Amino acid sequence: MSEAYVHGYDPRENERLRDQAGTLVELLHSDTAYPAGSAVLEAGCGVGAQTVTLARRSPGARFTSVDVSADSVAEAKRRTDAAGLTNVRFQQADIFALPFAPESFDHVFVCFVLEHLSRPVEALGILKRLLRPGGTMTVIEGDHGSAYFHPDSAAAHRAIECQVELQRVAGGNASIGRQLYPLMVEAGLEAVHVSPRMVYVDSSKPELVDGFTRKTFTAMIEGVRESAIEAGIIDPETFDAGVRDLYRTAEADGVFCYTFFKGVGEKGKRA
Amino acid sequence: MSEAYVHGYDPRENERLRDQAGTLVELLHSDTAYPAGSAVLEAGCGVGAQTVTLARRSPGARFTSVDVSADSVAEAKRRTDAAGLTNVRFQQADIFALPFAPESFDHVFVCFVLEHLSRPVEALGILKRLLRPGGTMTVIEGDHGSAYFHPDSAAAHRAIECQVELQRVAGGNASIGRQLYPLMVEAGLEAVHVSPRMVYVDSSKPELVDGFTRKTFTAMIEGVRESAIEAGIIDPETFDAGVRDLYRTAEADGVFCYTFFKGVGEKGKRA
Repeated sequence: MSEAYVHGYDPRENERLRDQAGTLVELLHSDTAYPAGSAVLEAGCGVGAQTVTLARRSPGARFTSVDVSADSVAEAKRRTDAAGLTNVRFQQADIFALPFAPESFDHVFVCFVLEHLSRPVEALGILKRLLRPGGTMTVIEGDHGSAYFHPDSAAAHRAIECQVELQRVAGGNASIGRQLYPLMVEAGLEAVHVSPRMVYVDSSKPELVDGFTRKTFTAMIEGVRESAIEAGIIDPETFDAGVRDLYRTAEADGVFCYTFFKGVGEKGKRA
Repeated sequence: MSEAYVHGYDPRENERLRDQAGTLVELLHSDTAYPAGSAVLEAGCGVGAQTVTLARRSPGARFTSVDVSADSVAEAKRRTDAAGLTNVRFQQADIFALPFAPESFDHVFVCFVLEHLSRPVEALGILKRLLRPGGTMTVIEGDHGSAYFHPDSAAAHRAIECQVELQRVAGGNASIGRQLYPLMVEAGLEAVHVSPRMVYVDSSKPELVDGFTRKTFTAMIEGVRESAIEAGIIDPETFDAGVRDLYRTAEADGVFCYTFFKGVGEKGKRA
């Protein structure tokens, strides 16, 4: 069973996924599958955006999904219920004070969580203690410093920097993706393998132009407009020009690139 | 034959290559193979860095490799002779004044050339006229704006910008990789497919740390030191700090990312 699982992370398999992936979900998650009977902790499930995908792809695994926000946990439960999934239990809990016994999970999954934490290695260490020896930890993060595009635009980069700066002030790191390897190694995980998942969008891929460039990335940047202006990081004119230039990259001759990083490591047998 | 060739460019095949590739040559070229009997033009062969790989991978194809520099052509010929290759003929010629009849090639290959030209679309148009209808054009370019790393460093980015600026002043574009799709479409190529080839380097890949981060990328930036200082683009202290910080990314907890872009398009049957 363990071997079948590890096989799911074969790097050659991973690489096949990128260009085929029509959606972000496929790009990030289609090589994650947990064997029947395994106990999986999803730490930081938020409103369940990943939970439904995870639980559906591994119907025989038992998921425990936790989040620090009770409201998010309630929404995540509504989503998995609506999807007819019965292999997930939810719990409100802080990642730094999880109510689980050591070595009580076969696998841990952490997606878009470390970017919000000021002590990411400490969080990984806590999660590692919950893993049985030989169990695996999967970590996925984006990296805003990986965004580049055509036509290039200084205003667009400044608008992106607003999100980076706001996240930094809040104690997080929006460019943490590139650091997954050293962070996971520092946390004591073994056999760490990080594979970048680059989203490359040109107009031959209309579903990604709309679904990623416009509705995922640019919409996210657009969403920090008021906070960024209020914080005095940028003036409204520059911000709006930047967002306009990001939308410009979604036109017929535009190109947009962004990279997510997915790392998998093991807890040593003697750890 | 045409189908076998196109199969070599299957995107799923491409994606398998990335993480497996121990060297840049594999990453960029291992999915390029031309059928026996086909006539291939390599435009801008330089000193033959790609020629040996190309000709060896397609022993039955006949290559015509041209470069504007007679010295480079002579060196390229020495290299292919030393490699025992007999399927390449060389010719000194300017890409904007090539001495070949229209439609005289089955395939055209252009690698690390457009970055040096102020009129890249015009060059692609000229090369397209030399292709038979249904023939393919393969274009490979890097993109210096795709470089990011850990630890991040403003000085390192400024050192990289020196190379970008020097190339811009010389009429080129060191960040042209991301533009391959719109450039090839503008040149009238059809069925254009661009696939990014990201080089992701962490210390689990010692051959890439040494072969790419240190000896390819950082050494290249280091090479513009005198020109950049002489041109007044940067002061020696900042440049040296930047290069030092690039080498720093090759240490055990460092990460380095860079992306090449490979585009393949066809000349329409009625073009």
